[in-house]
Amino acid sequence: MEYKFSDKVNTLKASAIREILKFTADPDVISFAAGNPAPEAFPKEKIAEISAQLLRDDPILALQYSVTEGYTPLREFLKQWLGQKNCFHPEFDDLIITSGGQQANELSCKVLLNEGDTLLCESPSFIGSLNAFRSYNVNLKGVKMDSDGINIEELENALKSEKNVKILYLIPNFQNPTGKTMSLEKRKVVYELACKYDFIILEDDPYGELRFSGENIPSIKSLDTEGRVIYSSTFSKIISSGFRTGFVSAPSPIIQKIVVCKQVSDVHSNIWAQVVSHRFMTTVNLPEHFKKLRDIYRKKSSLMLQYIENDFSKKVSFVRPEGGLFIWCTLPENCDMNDFCKKAVQDYKIAVVPGNSFSVDENEVSHSFRLNYSTPTDEQICKGMEILSRMTRDLLDN
Amino acid sequence: MEYKFSDKVNTLKASAIREILKFTADPDVISFAAGNPAPEAFPKEKIAEISAQLLRDDPILALQYSVTEGYTPLREFLKQWLGQKNCFHPEFDDLIITSGGQQANELSCKVLLNEGDTLLCESPSFIGSLNAFRSYNVNLKGVKMDSDGINIEELENALKSEKNVKILYLIPNFQNPTGKTMSLEKRKVVYELACKYDFIILEDDPYGELRFSGENIPSIKSLDTEGRVIYSSTFSKIISSGFRTGFVSAPSPIIQKIVVCKQVSDVHSNIWAQVVSHRFMTTVNLPEHFKKLRDIYRKKSSLMLQYIENDFSKKVSFVRPEGGLFIWCTLPENCDMNDFCKKAVQDYKIAVVPGNSFSVDENEVSHSFRLNYSTPTDEQICKGMEILSRMTRDLLDN
Repeated sequence: MEYKFSDKVNTLKASAIREILKFTADPDVISFAAGNPAPEAFPKEKIAEISAQLLRDDPILALQYSVTEGYTPLREFLKQWLGQKNCFHPEFDDLIITSGGQQANELSCKVLLNEGDTLLCESPSFIGSLNAFRSYNVNLKGVKMDSDGINIEELENALKSEKNVKILYLIPNFQNPTGKTMSLEKRKVVYELACKYDFIILEDDPYGELRFSGENIPSIKSLDTEGRVIYSSTFSKIISSGFRTGFVSAPSPIIQKIVVCKQVSDVHSNIWAQVVSHRFMTTVNLPEHFKKLRDIYRKKSSLMLQYIENDFSKKVSFVRPEGGLFIWCTLPENCDMNDFCKKAVQDYKIAVVPGNSFSVDENEVSHSFRLNYSTPTDEQICKGMEILSRMTRDLLDN
Repeated sequence: MEYKFSDKVNTLKASAIREILKFTADPDVISFAAGNPAPEAFPKEKIAEISAQLLRDDPILALQYSVTEGYTPLREFLKQWLGQKNCFHPEFDDLIITSGGQQANELSCKVLLNEGDTLLCESPSFIGSLNAFRSYNVNLKGVKMDSDGINIEELENALKSEKNVKILYLIPNFQNPTGKTMSLEKRKVVYELACKYDFIILEDDPYGELRFSGENIPSIKSLDTEGRVIYSSTFSKIISSGFRTGFVSAPSPIIQKIVVCKQVSDVHSNIWAQVVSHRFMTTVNLPEHFKKLRDIYRKKSSLMLQYIENDFSKKVSFVRPEGGLFIWCTLPENCDMNDFCKKAVQDYKIAVVPGNSFSVDENEVSHSFRLNYSTPTDEQICKGMEILSRMTRDLLDN
């Protein structure tokens, strides 16, 4: 038979990154295209210990159906933990556990937007979220970024010209893919605009704990006095990505709707991972654990940056990240970025992600590509960056 | 601020069963309202053993990001296992792991239906699926059931009168909530109608392995020659519900779209549970494991049925299930079912689920209620059913 799909998913494509990752099945290819946490960042012994104890002493808790909102002790812990960072306001917020940050962002869109309503976001932005929004057939409109985050003038223009703007989606810390961090000044302006134009800010903060240089900047959620900010985060980068355990702090009426939508989506998130996460967060020395993670990423990013600074063609510009997992490089305008990325993987056996994979408007021309330093080993970084450096010089300096 | 929600979720309510379950927090209340597998049905020692080995020998596999389609060895196992039951046709089907059967049904609706398209289903039916369909603002139309499944005449009338019928949703084995099983004859007729009227059958089979009497009936998927059947099932009732591990076998083009939608929903399902499920299914003696489960549910259902047959007022009719988790009881027409259920929980401290919780049309009058025998202990069944029997006699026979 001939299959007819719904309009909302008909043109939806799998992440372009997945196509690139196919090349990385070739053992000769060194991949800087992924976005996985460093394997050494997973606290695997502690997880094994907690899990063994849980499955021995409390197996039914870990194996039976649970409640949609999430494991109550974990929710209580997170309310307190996020409360300390002013990301949970007990007077008007509530909190739900989600199946990763991905589900938090998807359901926020589902509960607030009708087809055709407008969602604004940084451009470029995280492909997974963009596709989630696209899957609800909303009017997705990108706003260009400066070095300190979204361009305010262009944002205000979009707020005036676009119809039914309901959500502004932002990744203020070490944004994916650019690695950029939004300044406190801009966070304040953006929040003021939310109040003025009456929209919701969806603040996605998967990398917040991975700051390895500079000073912490208060979240937009911490500025929230009117109940306009949905704050989503995840244990993917601080405990385990395979857990698929994320969380959202948002005004209670929004959480209530997310609960109903989550219930019909997957009933609840894997409960073993929720209990293990709770016991991990409440028994380890958290500052020490986070310090360990930051040390890993500081070291790996420095290693990669060293090649970019010293060995890349000077015609390649880049963003120096203060945390997170990515470095954003930009080629000179006369160089075709797609050709560059194709050549990199086919001729030089180095996989990077072409910048237009992250574009909101797919026809937009990008001259950038994304490098990841968390997934490769140090040896792979050295070997791969040496090759990539040579390639930039061969192509751009001759 | 005042929150405005999307039309599709604006009127969506949390499952009414959850409201009833709140009463069950009262320790004096005996609950026949849940739908959890019996705790003794979870193979907890084996899961603990497999998990310990996995987290010791292969921790990164269990903790790192994985692929959206699901853990490859589990998919390969399922293709073979379902293939043996003729529920996977290698010439046109593919298979994906989902976050429980719930996600399988939700995403099937998302990829195939536009807002306003029609989805037909049995009425009453599983509230979780009904709400998932409602959350996409589709035209949900229930078709009444006979003792051997959906009423064919009414189904054909609906096919002629409703616009854009895209999916017929069915739970052919030990349906939730009625416990009814669809006859082979009806399965064949329904499949023929799918071919004639060009729609997709979504066959939800969470309880298939829990048949404790009668003969197995071939699935509708096993009759599928044209690629019209989406077959979804889950490990919730045969390994662990807390895992949230389900699976879908369907024509490749449909699976491809489900993969894209799953990617934007939760990236992938918890990978620890997928690997544990695979190792469980491939190392235990499966026929023996299933026999153990069937013995548990045969015994518990018999215990409950004994009270209904011997001690209930004869004015209460019921469906004798051949498997699954539920018994469907129907009061005489002059008895108000909602009053009965309210009285049961408030005065007699017995929680049952009012039948209209499962109605497709919420204004439909129901005289039935659902009993569950898998969650309570044998002692609770005896004590609770004695009370409920007395209540039916008090109310109906005096």
